[in-house]
Amino acid sequence: MAEFSPGLEGVVAAETAVSEVDGANGRLIYRGGYLIEDLVPVTSYEEVAFLLWRGELPNEKDLDGLRKQMAAARRLNDSARKTLAAMDPKDDPMDLLRTVVSAQGATPSLTKPTLDEAIALTAVFPTIIGGSYRRRLGKNPIEPRDDLGHAANLLWMLEGKEPEAHRVHWVDTYLVLLADHGLNASTFAARVVASTGSDLASCVVGAIAALKGPAHGGATLAARNMLDKVGSADNAERWLTDAHARHERFSGFGHRVYRTYDPRAKILREMAKEAAPELHRTAARTEEVALKILHDAHPERPNATNVDFWASVVLTGAGIPKELFTTIFATSRVAGWTAHVLESISDLRIIRPASRWTGPEPGKKPLQLANR
Amino acid sequence: MAEFSPGLEGVVAAETAVSEVDGANGRLIYRGGYLIEDLVPVTSYEEVAFLLWRGELPNEKDLDGLRKQMAAARRLNDSARKTLAAMDPKDDPMDLLRTVVSAQGATPSLTKPTLDEAIALTAVFPTIIGGSYRRRLGKNPIEPRDDLGHAANLLWMLEGKEPEAHRVHWVDTYLVLLADHGLNASTFAARVVASTGSDLASCVVGAIAALKGPAHGGATLAARNMLDKVGSADNAERWLTDAHARHERFSGFGHRVYRTYDPRAKILREMAKEAAPELHRTAARTEEVALKILHDAHPERPNATNVDFWASVVLTGAGIPKELFTTIFATSRVAGWTAHVLESISDLRIIRPASRWTGPEPGKKPLQLANR
Repeated sequence: MAEFSPGLEGVVAAETAVSEVDGANGRLIYRGGYLIEDLVPVTSYEEVAFLLWRGELPNEKDLDGLRKQMAAARRLNDSARKTLAAMDPKDDPMDLLRTVVSAQGATPSLTKPTLDEAIALTAVFPTIIGGSYRRRLGKNPIEPRDDLGHAANLLWMLEGKEPEAHRVHWVDTYLVLLADHGLNASTFAARVVASTGSDLASCVVGAIAALKGPAHGGATLAARNMLDKVGSADNAERWLTDAHARHERFSGFGHRVYRTYDPRAKILREMAKEAAPELHRTAARTEEVALKILHDAHPERPNATNVDFWASVVLTGAGIPKELFTTIFATSRVAGWTAHVLESISDLRIIRPASRWTGPEPGKKPLQLANR
Repeated sequence: MAEFSPGLEGVVAAETAVSEVDGANGRLIYRGGYLIEDLVPVTSYEEVAFLLWRGELPNEKDLDGLRKQMAAARRLNDSARKTLAAMDPKDDPMDLLRTVVSAQGATPSLTKPTLDEAIALTAVFPTIIGGSYRRRLGKNPIEPRDDLGHAANLLWMLEGKEPEAHRVHWVDTYLVLLADHGLNASTFAARVVASTGSDLASCVVGAIAALKGPAHGGATLAARNMLDKVGSADNAERWLTDAHARHERFSGFGHRVYRTYDPRAKILREMAKEAAPELHRTAARTEEVALKILHDAHPERPNATNVDFWASVVLTGAGIPKELFTTIFATSRVAGWTAHVLESISDLRIIRPASRWTGPEPGKKPLQLANR
């Protein structure tokens, strides 16, 4: 039988043209062969979502059509609205998102995933996240605005006031950067669900479930929590040295695929100077010290800063409450999840790996039962 | 880079002592090394769930403790009860299950999966399925009964009357047989979600999402629907010959792992004689003709009958409405899902496979944008 590679590291589980992580060279490539650093300065989230779904960048008419279609799909249906109201707003925002997306996607009979469904599900995330967050604050949910782009509408749904252009820009850039990333665990979960012939909402719910984990989408909050503990640039060396002595893991460093600096982290680090100057100083010093400690301890490992570290600074600067970080990650990645599902169903084959039995030899142990 | 095996066929994705499918010899082995055919005659679902979770069969005290713990966990919490009431009862029962389990599992902060959580989630499935089904019929949900075992309580929640012992036995046997099955797609989905450090409810919700697909849990309903179309033993040859000529796939035949008759199907086929004599006759003739047609068309393939085919007959005989088949499958498999999660978190490593890029060479295509 084949070699066992824990975590399926290095095992090719799919062929894809949606995105490629070139870990050795620190490159993230989106559909069509575009490098992330080429896309970021010139595209909005809607354009990148279109690219991931359709394989090419939209022309003016395409983009206008997509914006209208998304705006029209921002409202919750009856089941989702009532489910949102049924939930305890103090629960984890990812649990609320998982449940309300599940309600929004419920249908009387099984449907095959379509692009229209992908667009509609992507469009509705800010409504769910905003509605949950407003209820958490004891405020009423806000109606979505048809005239705003995706990033601006997201801030609008949280705050109920017209967001400043620079904050919209930071959020939009974050959404572009995180929209897809090869076979990360949540995207892979979506593809596993899709492989059984299940519906698109099931795929997305499975992906949300996986993204929640601190080793995945939860890492951005973990990075921010670490920066909160560090507190200031001056305190970085002391805090990190102590934490290292306690064998505490530094949040925001290391990645399964990148052997060098994450290209998304590079863009966000630059943006953080403007978005959150004070936190940027703390983070820059934290990064410097952490990389030195990690390099000294494990010179053989590629201990580069990952996207979560600098994303936590930019999202903070954009005014996103930290308890929502993972849901904002989901708001971006849903374009990638759905693009992967739509790609995979053209040649459906159930993902059903083998396992290696580590139990005792079968059929040898006598059956001893309690109740006879 | 490694070979690409579509659907991860033959790729070892985990080491496990929860269960083993010995496809070459047609054996299903549960934790401890027990063969399924040895367990079935002497164990209830609760005993097998205990075995999968704990690694050994319960003694009298263990079993009594588990029964009490499950009985005490059968009631929905506030969020789940309100969510169930918020949903449209005409929606797919698997969508309702996915959503209400998600609501039931929502918590204010991330928890590490525990055995107590596994027991509680397993215990509550019949309450959700029964509640959804009763609402679908326009009837009120029924309160769970603490004095009934898991299978009996499931029938009670659907019907609101004391179920006959023979029907309880058939359902219980089905639940024992389906409780685990190696790295099937839904269990694998649960393990992918768990690998990120996510919570147990997220793992189970991801697994429900995957089970829904017609290539997985949905196959039992598909088999029953095919038998409905066949209609009678006399009509089997004509219907199957015509369907084969139309290139229609026969439901209930073939499996990724078994190269021979599925040991669960063998047990259910025998039980079906008593549980549903009329449908058994139709099914037996359908099986005979289908296997002949499949063998003639593809003598090189192992075209044996799978568990879904005979499960559909036994569940019919036990009085389970066919639109609930997939949810009853979930009711059984949740023990396996949670056992796998509990096993996997002892050595957590994110499941993050590689992919093979099939898009154009990166960085070559000029960027052409709509809006500038």
